[in-house]
Parts: sequence; structure tokens; C-alpha cells
Amino acid sequence: MMKSKIAVLILSLGLAGTASAEVSPEDAIKWRQSGYAFMAWNMTRIKANIEGEFKQDEVVKAANAIQAIANSGMGALYLPGTDQGTGWAKTRVRPELFSDREGVGKVAKAFNEEANAMAKVAASGDLAAIKQQFGKLGGTCKGCHDDYRVKD
Amino acid sequence: MMKSKIAVLILSLGLAGTASAEVSPEDAIKWRQSGYAFMAWNMTRIKANIEGEFKQDEVVKAANAIQAIANSGMGALYLPGTDQGTGWAKTRVRPELFSDREGVGKVAKAFNEEANAMAKVAASGDLAAIKQQFGKLGGTCKGCHDDYRVKD
Repeated sequence: MMKSKIAVLILSLGLAGTASAEVSPEDAIKWRQSGYAFMAWNMTRIKANIEGEFKQDEVVKAANAIQAIANSGMGALYLPGTDQGTGWAKTRVRPELFSDREGVGKVAKAFNEEANAMAKVAASGDLAAIKQQFGKLGGTCKGCHDDYRVKD
Repeated sequence: MMKSKIAVLILSLGLAGTASAEVSPEDAIKWRQSGYAFMAWNMTRIKANIEGEFKQDEVVKAANAIQAIANSGMGALYLPGTDQGTGWAKTRVRPELFSDREGVGKVAKAFNEEANAMAKVAASGDLAAIKQQFGKLGGTCKGCHDDYRVKD
């Protein structure tokens, strides 16, 4: 009786673990592509506000979205088995992203820091500072693409 | 000479305006699909943390991402001419989203409010409140899907 209760307990914990933790490679790739594409929209919006009519409210919304996505822990979406495969489209990740732990840590840290700074600067409304920070943030996007994304 | 300078000025302003404001229907659809898909990942994560091992930090990150996307002004991506078309995939938006301004305003407001409340409750770390708020937030997703998204 005791044994079977424990067996049921183990089984139910196991199932809960599976249900919650298991993400298909297709979903993982799709979700990370979604995060990057949504940030691309928001980078486009910040650029448009810098180059055209400046609406601080727009820049704040865009910078906050980028910041929250940058800090969401997207690294969890680079699961084993997602070095190849198709989400919305075929993944363009390079194998180095899965092997170069130190290098990836560096670009990820730089990106997070500049995304946090972008949100702060957007809130300040200082256009010159926003322009400068936008350049820095874009540089961290490019830094990762150069090393860990297949070229166009 | 003066005339040609003005012409050049007008032309360059015109081009800048075009470059910044013009979003292709394909990009608009792709970007909104990305926003929803990224939120879907984060809803999945909150669910996993409620049903399995609860890590408040994970729930906070997920709720913050949903909140920032909800408040990013995605309505701007429902441009005229994007009632049909393909971004990552064929859009599933229903024509009612473009005509029922009042109804859309209601579901959008409800979604924003519950997303803001979700982030607040996540920060509190109160699991019972997180569970309850997760249900409310999910209800506002469903409310919009029921009325404005083509059924599966």
C-alpha cells in the first residue's frame, strides 16, 4: 500500500515535470525567432523616431519591450537538439552558439546591459542620448549576428 | 539654385519620412505574429511554474515580457491592407478586428489591465494570487481569439 502510494506520487510528479518542462524543438526555435523579430520591430520604431518625428512615448514603449524580452531568459530556448530545425522558418543559428559558452555569455551580457540602458535613456527623453544608446544597442545585436548567426 | 535646394530638401525629407513610417504588410503581420507567439511561450512558462516547481524569478521574467509586449502598442501593426496576407504564416485575423472598433477596444483594454496585474502579482510572489491572475489573463487572450481570430 505504502509502496503503491509512493509509486503514484513519483509517477504524478514525473508527469507534471514532463508536462511543464518539455518544449518541442520546433516551438523553441519558433519562440526565439519570435523574440528577435519582435525586437526588430521595436528597433525599427526607435530608428523611425530618431530619424523622423520624435515621440518619446513610442520610444519608451519600444525600449521597454526590448528590455523585457532581453531579460526574459531566452537562453532557455537554445535547447539541445535545436541547433538545426524549423520554427517559423529554418533556424539560422550557428553551431558555435552551442559550443562557445564564454563568447555567448559575453555577447548576451553586453546585449542585456545595453537593452537596460536603452530603456533608462528612453525614459529620460534625452534625444541625443537616445541616439547614442540606440547605436550601442544595435552594435550588440550585430555582435551576436556576426559570430552566431548564419550570414544572409 | 534656391529652387533646386528646396527640391532636394523636400525630396530628402520625403524619403526619410517614407523610410521611417512605411511598414510592409508582410512585416506588420510577421511582427504581430511574433508578439503573440512570444507571449504564448511566456504563458506556457507561467503555467509550468504554477503546475510544477515554482520559481518566482521565472514567473517574474515571463510576466514582465508579456506586460511590455501588451503595452507596446501592437495595434499599430493592424495596418490597412493587413486583413489578409502572410507574415511568418497566413494571418488568421478576422475582418471584424478592423471594423468593430468598440469591441476591439474593450478586449484590448481588458488584456492590458490583466497583463499589468499579472506583472504586479508575479512580483509579489503570492502563488495563489499568481494562479488566479494567470486564469484572468488567459481569459482575455481567449476573449480576443474567440471574436477576432479564425478558428483552428
